[in-house]
Amino acid sequence: MSQERLTALQHALAGQQVQGFLIPRCDEYQNEYVPAADERLAWLTGFTGSAGLAAVAGDRTALFVDGRYTLQAAQQIGSQPIEQQNLAPADIANWLCAALKEGDTLGYDPRLHTEPGLAPLKKRLDECGIHLHALDANPIDRIWDNRPAAPCGAARPHPLTFTGEDSASKRQRIAEQLATKKQDALWLANPEVCAWLFNIRGSDIPHLPVALSMGFLYQDGSAVLYLAESATTEALRQHLGRDVEIVHDKLALFTAAERQHVQKVWADPLLTNCWTLHELRNREIKILLERDPITLAKARKNAVELEGSRAAHIRDGAALCEFLAELPAAVAGGRQDKSFGELEAVQLLRSKRELREGFTDDSFDTISGYCGNGAIVHYRVSPQSSLPMRAAGIYLIDSGGQYPDGTTDVTRTVALGEPPPRAKEHFTRVLKGHIAIASLRFPKGTCGEQIDAFARKSLWDVGLDYAHGTGHGVGSFLSVHEGPQRIGKANTNVALEAGMIVSNEPGFYLTGEYGIRIENLVFVKESAEYPGFLEFEALTMAPIERQLVDPELLADSELIWLNRYHATVRETLLPLVSEQTRNWLVAATEPLSKAQ
Amino acid sequence: MSQERLTALQHALAGQQVQGFLIPRCDEYQNEYVPAADERLAWLTGFTGSAGLAAVAGDRTALFVDGRYTLQAAQQIGSQPIEQQNLAPADIANWLCAALKEGDTLGYDPRLHTEPGLAPLKKRLDECGIHLHALDANPIDRIWDNRPAAPCGAARPHPLTFTGEDSASKRQRIAEQLATKKQDALWLANPEVCAWLFNIRGSDIPHLPVALSMGFLYQDGSAVLYLAESATTEALRQHLGRDVEIVHDKLALFTAAERQHVQKVWADPLLTNCWTLHELRNREIKILLERDPITLAKARKNAVELEGSRAAHIRDGAALCEFLAELPAAVAGGRQDKSFGELEAVQLLRSKRELREGFTDDSFDTISGYCGNGAIVHYRVSPQSSLPMRAAGIYLIDSGGQYPDGTTDVTRTVALGEPPPRAKEHFTRVLKGHIAIASLRFPKGTCGEQIDAFARKSLWDVGLDYAHGTGHGVGSFLSVHEGPQRIGKANTNVALEAGMIVSNEPGFYLTGEYGIRIENLVFVKESAEYPGFLEFEALTMAPIERQLVDPELLADSELIWLNRYHATVRETLLPLVSEQTRNWLVAATEPLSKAQ
Repeated sequence: MSQERLTALQHALAGQQVQGFLIPRCDEYQNEYVPAADERLAWLTGFTGSAGLAAVAGDRTALFVDGRYTLQAAQQIGSQPIEQQNLAPADIANWLCAALKEGDTLGYDPRLHTEPGLAPLKKRLDECGIHLHALDANPIDRIWDNRPAAPCGAARPHPLTFTGEDSASKRQRIAEQLATKKQDALWLANPEVCAWLFNIRGSDIPHLPVALSMGFLYQDGSAVLYLAESATTEALRQHLGRDVEIVHDKLALFTAAERQHVQKVWADPLLTNCWTLHELRNREIKILLERDPITLAKARKNAVELEGSRAAHIRDGAALCEFLAELPAAVAGGRQDKSFGELEAVQLLRSKRELREGFTDDSFDTISGYCGNGAIVHYRVSPQSSLPMRAAGIYLIDSGGQYPDGTTDVTRTVALGEPPPRAKEHFTRVLKGHIAIASLRFPKGTCGEQIDAFARKSLWDVGLDYAHGTGHGVGSFLSVHEGPQRIGKANTNVALEAGMIVSNEPGFYLTGEYGIRIENLVFVKESAEYPGFLEFEALTMAPIERQLVDPELLADSELIWLNRYHATVRETLLPLVSEQTRNWLVAATEPLSKAQ
Repeated sequence: MSQERLTALQHALAGQQVQGFLIPRCDEYQNEYVPAADERLAWLTGFTGSAGLAAVAGDRTALFVDGRYTLQAAQQIGSQPIEQQNLAPADIANWLCAALKEGDTLGYDPRLHTEPGLAPLKKRLDECGIHLHALDANPIDRIWDNRPAAPCGAARPHPLTFTGEDSASKRQRIAEQLATKKQDALWLANPEVCAWLFNIRGSDIPHLPVALSMGFLYQDGSAVLYLAESATTEALRQHLGRDVEIVHDKLALFTAAERQHVQKVWADPLLTNCWTLHELRNREIKILLERDPITLAKARKNAVELEGSRAAHIRDGAALCEFLAELPAAVAGGRQDKSFGELEAVQLLRSKRELREGFTDDSFDTISGYCGNGAIVHYRVSPQSSLPMRAAGIYLIDSGGQYPDGTTDVTRTVALGEPPPRAKEHFTRVLKGHIAIASLRFPKGTCGEQIDAFARKSLWDVGLDYAHGTGHGVGSFLSVHEGPQRIGKANTNVALEAGMIVSNEPGFYLTGEYGIRIENLVFVKESAEYPGFLEFEALTMAPIERQLVDPELLADSELIWLNRYHATVRETLLPLVSEQTRNWLVAATEPLSKAQ
């Protein structure tokens, strides 16, 4: 079937006078998760991973994926005539320069790319005499039969009890920054930005509770917002008020801006697609390419958002405890004919979350990895891959929930039988890294890259490390991956600030054996005792596997941290869990001590 | 007197048709230390600090200095009509835009500026309608009576026993990188680059053992080198061989390159002055502006250079011990009529270094700070500032020596009487930071900014920090401050590599009371036990003040590190110090232990 699709695409390209075409796993909003209607990459290649790019060039086709998807991509490509390649700008450029000839034209859909994203490719193609050309229409959309409709669920007002600040106040704050930069308008590039600014939510994208939207904020605090007609209820109109014009056609955004005599627009280069920049330039509007000020404003949670996050994490933690308490019996109850495996574990945890107030969705696809599967960092369980579980081995589960008061993300690693000493050592070293971050005090102005190594030192001491970041920002009933702050090796130049939520998730992975990760969400707060200094406070409430801790490897201060955290977890969750989970929770949070 | 100079300069500017002029503390090689003939800033303003800029604009004059020079600049300006300002690009630009009018022209000497250095200023001046104009001749040079002659000491071959690699081999290695980048030549922008590449040294600049030089390296490994005629001995000609053409006029460098049909030149934007770029562009030579490959090659010391550094540090450590052993008696021996103070301490230490084989110069101006003066991070003692010392209080001395086999840089903080508990706590916390870096193991690819916080954590724990970097690179009988690696908060994106020498110098400063800093030079080496990991090894050999250590604040592993380091220092230096210093050294390196 897919061979037919490839052939059809090649014909379509010939009709559009281009010799090649790029198919990123992306929608026009640069969302991490995309609506079904935008799963062009999966439609063409069968590859369903969260990151990838296909390129058609002459009679050749390549799928570019990164290390975490090498195996999955090979399986999903199967026998199709698709070359699998590494997803790195240099490798993509090299493949294209080899597959195309000097003078050829490579087409792309300008809605699905940003200028900084295309820049390294463009530079290399220029050197090879290959032209990049923006196509008016995406050739795949023309040949995709039974393409799912674009989502257009109702947008809902997100109440002040959860946001803590009304939209008019937010718009005023951001508009002041427009005035400082002498810009007439800010381009609102994606649904997350609009969701925060207008206090609206929706259900158009998996795991991300937003309505598809984009728009302009003007210097006077008024705005124009694109929303599908079906998304626009009367309640929403009332919520937005008369200062927000709603249009149902994206091009109408630009005519609205022209009516407002907008001549200078601030647009975030990393969020804004090429099509938008083209539309602006066509109207001779000057563009200031700088980071969207909403990115930082959204990252700094206010007191109401932090209180909401705390409450959501308590309910989420109670659900996780129900799951963890039931897991050994579920594993033991698995039978030859109907075994309990990684997939059933995902379903069991989901069923526990669904019982909790306000739960609307998982905040991302749960990572449920038993033994060797746990060592695959971005593992996504499928019916084919799901390992049956038994009362031995290490199991890692990384999951989260969307609640109107907060977004959660938690990883726990549990021992399903007596763990080997090596696993205990690895787990305890990861725990030492987790505690180092959790208990760190640091001066204002410190960036994530400056503290990342504290999470790794106990592993570095014995020549080990992990190949992922230590922490990412998290939204408030928004994306579970939110910038601009981050804790990792790569430079962000973004200082951690009071109110920011960030994950703390060091890990260790022994290929073919097990994966270990301990993840809490924490928020940044001012130090009460030391002015000018910041500290973290844990939001996540769930026991850390005692069976995997070797207390002899912990410093006294680390043991005190663990026992205090467990005392808080016990006290907080005990009233909220079922009778049978209560005993488990008490045992799981018993203080640990060193042998005398 | 200086008022006359200002007036003369204003007249000269009028003659050159400019309304303003910039006077940086800089020479045409962007050296950290400059020859007397280039001390234009000091000549005009009286300010002798190592960083600063004066600007004349209309009838106003300003001196821009950073925080460390605020007091000194005010004293040295005295009653002159010079406004003192903050040395930050935005502040300089603001002052100039206020002092000049739209349409005015600000002159600068293109030899004394780099394009990246001028860029932020140029942007702001453009906005104000003020033109930047490169002057053919520096107006100060025209009016400076009795200006010192440019230095032109003999350049000496630096033998293979110290460099470990001959110039032909170095030139071949770097030329290969030229070929890879398809460049015809590399611009050798300054004497340090030339010193390393050609294995030559000189004595033209204080503290930096180089001969003033610049040149081109061609893609075939041959080169053209500018050196003053008086610097060029027959021995040097023989050392350089027939592949290196010597010219005595800088402009002849460009004609030589033209004769070689050079059309593409690689030049480091941070090292290359505007005049050079102008000369290249005038000849329609294309310029690749990237970091000089010699920077990294020079930073990676070979086995001979490391062995030399080790030997130099042992001799230097023995000299420092003689000084430290004699210090209490010298302080006690100071009298009303002839007290022993910070200045005498500098002289005493210098006299000890001068007795050691190969010592040629201090590697920078010694920082000798008693009590409150120790808290001034970049303090330079003068006859006016020198405090008399007595048998109480904390004393900090940061100094280094130039030896043909290595450059040293060491800081020790000593207690001249029983120190207060607070000082012991501060010192011990600084020591914990020093040990954290010294004993760190880290994976290849790690940059200085990723490990800097380990040096600060023990201070952060109690809400303290220090306002300087933790470590800088050090040359091999070259500059005591050498890039590209660094350990600090600012992002370098430069990985620490085996063979790099870097300082490890956390500190703490209590204004008006004392300064504490513990500095060793260390070098990076591969971990013997853990492949892919790197470690540090100490080069500096000198006791760390035991009286200031509170063993109770040290972890067991930290106490073991300190006692082992002291055992090594004792064993290494004992055979090299005088009879009377031997007892002191044994006492100063006695193992410490915690109370039971």
